[in-house]
Amino acid sequence: MTEKYIYSYNEGDGKNKHLLGGKGANLCEMTQIGLNVPPGFVITTATCLIYLDDPNRALPEGLMEGVKKHMQAVEKASGKNFGDPDNPLLVSVRSGSAMSMPGMMDTILNLGLNAQTLQGLIKQTGDERFSYDSYRRFIQLFGKVALDIADEHFDKQFETVKKRVGATADVDLSATELKEISELFLQVVRDKTGKPFPSNVYEQLEIAIKAVFNSWGGKRAVDYRREFNITPDMANGTAVNVVAMVFGNMGNDCATGVGFTRNPGTGENEMYGEYLVNAQGEDVVAGTRTPKPVQEMEKEMPELYKQLVDLRNKLEGHYHEVQDYEYTIEKGLLYCLQTRNGKMNAAAMVRTSVEMVNEGLISKDQALLRVNPEQLEQLLHPRLDPNHNAEPLAQGLSASPGAAYGKCVFDADRAEVLGRAGEKVILVREETKPEDIHGFFASQGILTSRGGKTSHAAVVARSMGKACVAGAEGIAVDTRARQARIGDQVLHEGDIITIDGSSGNVYLGELPTIEPEFSEELKTLLGWADEVAQLKVMANADTPEEALRAVEYGAMGIGLCRTERMFNDVERLPIVVDMILANTPEARQTALDKLLPIQRGDFKDVFKTMSPRPVTVRLLDPPLHEFLPTEMQLTEEIENLRQLRGTLKGVANVLNTLRVSQPNPNDLPTPLPVPFDEMGEERVNEIIAKKERMLRKVRELYEVNPMLGHRGVRLGITYPEIYTMQIRAILEAAAECVKEGIDVHPEIMVPQVTTSQELKCVKKTVDATQQQVEAAYGIKLKFEFGTMIEVVRACMRATQLAKVAEFFSFGTNDLSQATFSFSREDAENKFLPLYNETGILQDNPFEVLDVKGVGQLMNMTVEWGRKSRHGLKVGICGEQGGHPSSIRFCHHIGLDYVSCSAPRVPIARLAAALAKLQEDKYSVD
Amino acid sequence: MTEKYIYSYNEGDGKNKHLLGGKGANLCEMTQIGLNVPPGFVITTATCLIYLDDPNRALPEGLMEGVKKHMQAVEKASGKNFGDPDNPLLVSVRSGSAMSMPGMMDTILNLGLNAQTLQGLIKQTGDERFSYDSYRRFIQLFGKVALDIADEHFDKQFETVKKRVGATADVDLSATELKEISELFLQVVRDKTGKPFPSNVYEQLEIAIKAVFNSWGGKRAVDYRREFNITPDMANGTAVNVVAMVFGNMGNDCATGVGFTRNPGTGENEMYGEYLVNAQGEDVVAGTRTPKPVQEMEKEMPELYKQLVDLRNKLEGHYHEVQDYEYTIEKGLLYCLQTRNGKMNAAAMVRTSVEMVNEGLISKDQALLRVNPEQLEQLLHPRLDPNHNAEPLAQGLSASPGAAYGKCVFDADRAEVLGRAGEKVILVREETKPEDIHGFFASQGILTSRGGKTSHAAVVARSMGKACVAGAEGIAVDTRARQARIGDQVLHEGDIITIDGSSGNVYLGELPTIEPEFSEELKTLLGWADEVAQLKVMANADTPEEALRAVEYGAMGIGLCRTERMFNDVERLPIVVDMILANTPEARQTALDKLLPIQRGDFKDVFKTMSPRPVTVRLLDPPLHEFLPTEMQLTEEIENLRQLRGTLKGVANVLNTLRVSQPNPNDLPTPLPVPFDEMGEERVNEIIAKKERMLRKVRELYEVNPMLGHRGVRLGITYPEIYTMQIRAILEAAAECVKEGIDVHPEIMVPQVTTSQELKCVKKTVDATQQQVEAAYGIKLKFEFGTMIEVVRACMRATQLAKVAEFFSFGTNDLSQATFSFSREDAENKFLPLYNETGILQDNPFEVLDVKGVGQLMNMTVEWGRKSRHGLKVGICGEQGGHPSSIRFCHHIGLDYVSCSAPRVPIARLAAALAKLQEDKYSVD
Repeated sequence: MTEKYIYSYNEGDGKNKHLLGGKGANLCEMTQIGLNVPPGFVITTATCLIYLDDPNRALPEGLMEGVKKHMQAVEKASGKNFGDPDNPLLVSVRSGSAMSMPGMMDTILNLGLNAQTLQGLIKQTGDERFSYDSYRRFIQLFGKVALDIADEHFDKQFETVKKRVGATADVDLSATELKEISELFLQVVRDKTGKPFPSNVYEQLEIAIKAVFNSWGGKRAVDYRREFNITPDMANGTAVNVVAMVFGNMGNDCATGVGFTRNPGTGENEMYGEYLVNAQGEDVVAGTRTPKPVQEMEKEMPELYKQLVDLRNKLEGHYHEVQDYEYTIEKGLLYCLQTRNGKMNAAAMVRTSVEMVNEGLISKDQALLRVNPEQLEQLLHPRLDPNHNAEPLAQGLSASPGAAYGKCVFDADRAEVLGRAGEKVILVREETKPEDIHGFFASQGILTSRGGKTSHAAVVARSMGKACVAGAEGIAVDTRARQARIGDQVLHEGDIITIDGSSGNVYLGELPTIEPEFSEELKTLLGWADEVAQLKVMANADTPEEALRAVEYGAMGIGLCRTERMFNDVERLPIVVDMILANTPEARQTALDKLLPIQRGDFKDVFKTMSPRPVTVRLLDPPLHEFLPTEMQLTEEIENLRQLRGTLKGVANVLNTLRVSQPNPNDLPTPLPVPFDEMGEERVNEIIAKKERMLRKVRELYEVNPMLGHRGVRLGITYPEIYTMQIRAILEAAAECVKEGIDVHPEIMVPQVTTSQELKCVKKTVDATQQQVEAAYGIKLKFEFGTMIEVVRACMRATQLAKVAEFFSFGTNDLSQATFSFSREDAENKFLPLYNETGILQDNPFEVLDVKGVGQLMNMTVEWGRKSRHGLKVGICGEQGGHPSSIRFCHHIGLDYVSCSAPRVPIARLAAALAKLQEDKYSVD
Repeated sequence: MTEKYIYSYNEGDGKNKHLLGGKGANLCEMTQIGLNVPPGFVITTATCLIYLDDPNRALPEGLMEGVKKHMQAVEKASGKNFGDPDNPLLVSVRSGSAMSMPGMMDTILNLGLNAQTLQGLIKQTGDERFSYDSYRRFIQLFGKVALDIADEHFDKQFETVKKRVGATADVDLSATELKEISELFLQVVRDKTGKPFPSNVYEQLEIAIKAVFNSWGGKRAVDYRREFNITPDMANGTAVNVVAMVFGNMGNDCATGVGFTRNPGTGENEMYGEYLVNAQGEDVVAGTRTPKPVQEMEKEMPELYKQLVDLRNKLEGHYHEVQDYEYTIEKGLLYCLQTRNGKMNAAAMVRTSVEMVNEGLISKDQALLRVNPEQLEQLLHPRLDPNHNAEPLAQGLSASPGAAYGKCVFDADRAEVLGRAGEKVILVREETKPEDIHGFFASQGILTSRGGKTSHAAVVARSMGKACVAGAEGIAVDTRARQARIGDQVLHEGDIITIDGSSGNVYLGELPTIEPEFSEELKTLLGWADEVAQLKVMANADTPEEALRAVEYGAMGIGLCRTERMFNDVERLPIVVDMILANTPEARQTALDKLLPIQRGDFKDVFKTMSPRPVTVRLLDPPLHEFLPTEMQLTEEIENLRQLRGTLKGVANVLNTLRVSQPNPNDLPTPLPVPFDEMGEERVNEIIAKKERMLRKVRELYEVNPMLGHRGVRLGITYPEIYTMQIRAILEAAAECVKEGIDVHPEIMVPQVTTSQELKCVKKTVDATQQQVEAAYGIKLKFEFGTMIEVVRACMRATQLAKVAEFFSFGTNDLSQATFSFSREDAENKFLPLYNETGILQDNPFEVLDVKGVGQLMNMTVEWGRKSRHGLKVGICGEQGGHPSSIRFCHHIGLDYVSCSAPRVPIARLAAALAKLQEDKYSVD
């Protein structure tokens, strides 16, 4: 069987990214839709796998013959010949897998140059300087990629010559100097490999193809795939593209550039990109020269600008997606070298989504599917408070929006170490390279002193949603000394700085930030999401202020209002403590009578704010000892008070002695300290007695496992007065709203339920209170009564519980703890990190819903609950309720709503829509 | 529709206990099999319900007409007429429901007497004394039962007359005196009811029938049914038996008695019972006169004794069950008044079961079904050490075997209060009555000063398996003064006594007891059980000693051997502490190297003891801090050591001062205290340093919820050295046994598993160690590798786990805690008692398996586990594994074995057999 290893761009299937890689497929597609693409061909990813599987690492038989055949076609199309000393064809050899892995694999340019073809190139172009420049570039790149010689060996030679002749930029070097550099580079290769630089062009090509294949298995690429969870079914092997070189560095009618079809930072529908005149592409990407914004091309090269605008329109018209493209202008002719879907930050994704729908390019569903819900979190990142008044330390380009602060670190390894230790860090580099990628993951933000908005640092930071300021040229980074100099200011490692990726400013210290606001586009998009989604999105909110915030984020109600949060207020806590210390039901009632109007007021405010949306109020959940100080605190306080009493008594004794020994008051020190009389001692004794009472109660309430202790409905049943007060407060608040004509939908939710008997017990109080309140206010109340499902037994008894409860709400925080028998507080400190690291558990189950265990329980619960109550309303109010993959699962098992913290609401709304749109593709295990 | 309310004994269906009550059905059956039963009829339980449902409490229309018709039949059969002043018929009116509720409902005797018929009775019998005696009995009983007049009003009159004439026993009273008493009694009725005693005999009968019906709903009966879980489907309403009176008190050729067809205390196949000459039945049951053993009748009334033996033989021959029967001899003719299945203690149940099989009366299955497994616990109760040498304080009858000690209390209410407070109490009464029933539940044992082996106290105590000494006449109980007098010894409430229900002895203080031994009959019965049962019964045993005990109790292997128990030994704990304090894996290994041979030795001993039975060893489970002192302990110890150091230094200073001021050593005190030199201080400092290290480790290991913390396999994965050592110890112990030719079947069990990844991780170590051990010993090992199922997630992942585990063992202690989210330690102190009291939970789920919640999980787990491993072995090793109803459930869901504490093994073996025999009748919810 002879497999087809090679496809010409004229024949390859533009949709088959698996076989041809993203870049190769795109080049095929671009060629076939009539864009001006340099002639070339692609060697398949399957070939790569065959090669990598071969123990001898030999290319498949016949491959190089095929390459030669295709090279002949390229020769024909370009009118040049590979290795021809008179009219040489040069090619680039590029990697390209099914998934974009920017910068992770290798590329070689200008391949085909040797001592002979170099002369041909000079003849061909009449430009000796350009030719030697290409030659030295090729030798270095080939040396690095294919022969494994570190850049620094070449850079050293290059800088020596540059310094000697006083050149500040590469373009200042003359042909002679570049020739000298080329020869020095050839010598570097000889020195480092012990062999001369390969001069046979097909030998060069073969080595290059192998080098690109090898880079698929290189550390950088493997790390990247692991970090981004790229599995073999998503991308397996890299293709190799062999493309005729076009030159952006043949003079001032040449240029090279990169662009996005829309602004990837803001999403604005405008020409966006940068270019460099008389340069090769790598100069733009690597950030070694700071390029010009594409807008300047309109003046500088108006004809070419028109070609560029045309290219951009063709790309979006074909792909219906924002494109990230590369081009080169050789002697006035624009070649498109590459295009791919543009990586954008969340704001840009949202804006382009909405605008592309409005332009008729895509449908609303497509618009929603473009945006990754987690990405929206970027939009919810803090920004700098505009009133901060701080003077910037330095200024760079706004390469990725958002504000971030942290300790300066000057290399990626260090960033990783500190980041893992829990420090917030800002990675500060002259420029970043793909090998810095682990430092990005560990940092809050990135600051570079060189490179533009499409530099490596900018592209990667944007894709990660991390703040980035690029090309802050005022900063001189000294990696070895672990410091940076800005004027005469020195930043040491560990100094805290703030970067504002939206303005490009850099500040010393930590600056105040403000919450982001919603853009109109985001509102539009989320509106579409709400139309599509089946799941409703509620917020967890405990106070009127939080309720307001929830509404702003688009919450459709409150799914969890924790009443105990209302207890934890400076003015209220003492009443709660009195309630707990009460030794009789009567004393407890007295304290509860004081709490009733307070809770009623809170509920009324929350109900009003949310009207007409539903508000689910959870009755008291935490164990009572949570409202008291700890045993340690109290013991210490009592000890201190006793010492104080002793000291005060001592002072009083001294004073008495003085009084006795100095009967003349004038001899006493002035002012005389207030004596510690019996009144004072009595007061201290009283305080000590109260603290001692608290200490006794704390000891009485002590629990071995508070997570599994006397809390929730267990409290409600042992101290029925507490729940009675809360139920009354809820129903009276609702009644007052009804009286005022406000449409309210309260729901009473019972926590920690294990058996329907508990629910029935609370329901009795609810029924009785309802009758009383309705009679007192002369109105009818509409509300629902339901239960948390956070105890495993409640899952098992769902059919019984649903006979009493009108709704279920999964408390997946507690349910996950009970299902795993992991105490979250203990697990996250003791063994969970190791479990995640060694892959015993994929995720932290307290962040991402464990669908295989906890989810399995939930699934059964929903089914069983709806057996006895058709259409039972079921939601989730655990932390995982705001996590997209968890939301997808919740949709899958037919929940009615998710409830999460207010800032996660927008993410959840989008995720809910996507869960619906992608439901056919979902499966567990 | 006219329902049939009444059945004559000649026609009623002897099997229909639901309709006719146990007693009525039996009387029908006895009549129809030709026993001499007084003529009579039974009014159905259905009639009772109609009556109780009637808001006016009127008897159904036509009932009394039916009664009259049947009375005419009785008149015919007896040759006497109801209400006839010349030849009066007297009847008894007796309750009787489908379930035996001894003494809980009312009975009236001698009904039909009035001023006229009394004269007829005198004429009839020519015995004035007997007639007045019957009359006064009837008035009192009718007054109490039907007219609600307390006994004491009658008793007062009775005692006054008795005292006046100097009579010590009732039989000492003359006709005149009894006549006087009758008249006084009639006056009592007039005084208390404001009306004369009803003289119309049918009016009497109607009132009596209603009174018996009413007693079904009385407090005593309702309490009894609740306590013994008698539900309406088991017994609903009481029947009323109207039976012609026969008289045991018509002279010395009359008698009354009760008997068991075999000895209910020992099970011995012998005549058993008591009788009283010239007495009515109530005299025997109420214990007001102490009756004679039936053996004396053989001499006293040889002809009647033969009739009695004949009766007994007919009863067992017919019922194939030990019978508890009542009889009366009237003028030399034996009437059988009642028979029912005899309540016996466990020893008697076991012995009669085995002997009845041997006699061909019942089958082996029937023998097993007769015995309630929980009852066997009686046989496992401690007995008095025969070498105790204590002198008995008093002696009574051995009414219910077993020894018990506790604080004396003299009334049932007080017993209940103290019993609930957790005190061990002995209820001491003159005699007990049905209203004392709550005191029985609360007491360890019962002691009465009056009544025999068939007195209320004796019957009830035996049915409860509580020790009872009855009729200890030397004790004078003074309930009001809360004391009892024995000679000149006074027992006050709260004094501790020991009673021996097997010998009838009563002792002051707490006496030493010994463990019971297995009777041959029990061994036989349990052997039959093992043949029938599907479930195997294993024991939880941790040491070689416990293993030996398990074998004695008939365990078929060890289902749970907790290795950490081996750590908790005075010599071993310091090594374990060193292991925990180790700061490096090497230091930890050093300690583990010391533990290895110790554990190996333990395992070898256990394996040998159990050979060839399987032994399941659980790897380390508890969190490490359990092996260290508490923070509080350590803080205190360190503080004490510091103070000690200060004191010792102070002493040293004083000594030094002495030395300096008294240069002449002879002036120093002798002997001179050892000075606290630097060596001593250094030693104290070292100890303090070590304690401080422990304290730091304790704080480091602190967990908020240790039940859900760093334990089980989580420890095994974070400190792999520990499990590696244990696995090696198990496999080397097995290898040594194999070398010695001993057949061993070890099983390695991993605790706290939540995911199959954990199991795989441990399995790797097992595989590697197996290879090493097999190579080192030159043998092949046979063992199994399995997992505890005690984490809910493990249930959910059963299919995956069963791919790695060769067996499952449910750890229902932890699984129940996780399923309920109840921490056992906290729940049992804080809210579980209230939950059980108010019926929110039926049982304590840590004692009785919660089949609806935890059981549901288990059921799914078994099914899912066997999906991936056909025939997967599954067992249970939680505490509930020894509880009969839990065992029944385990059989139902197809477990292979239960494992429980050794003393529960016999109970579990029988329960396992019953689970099989009764499997068709089982259902959950």
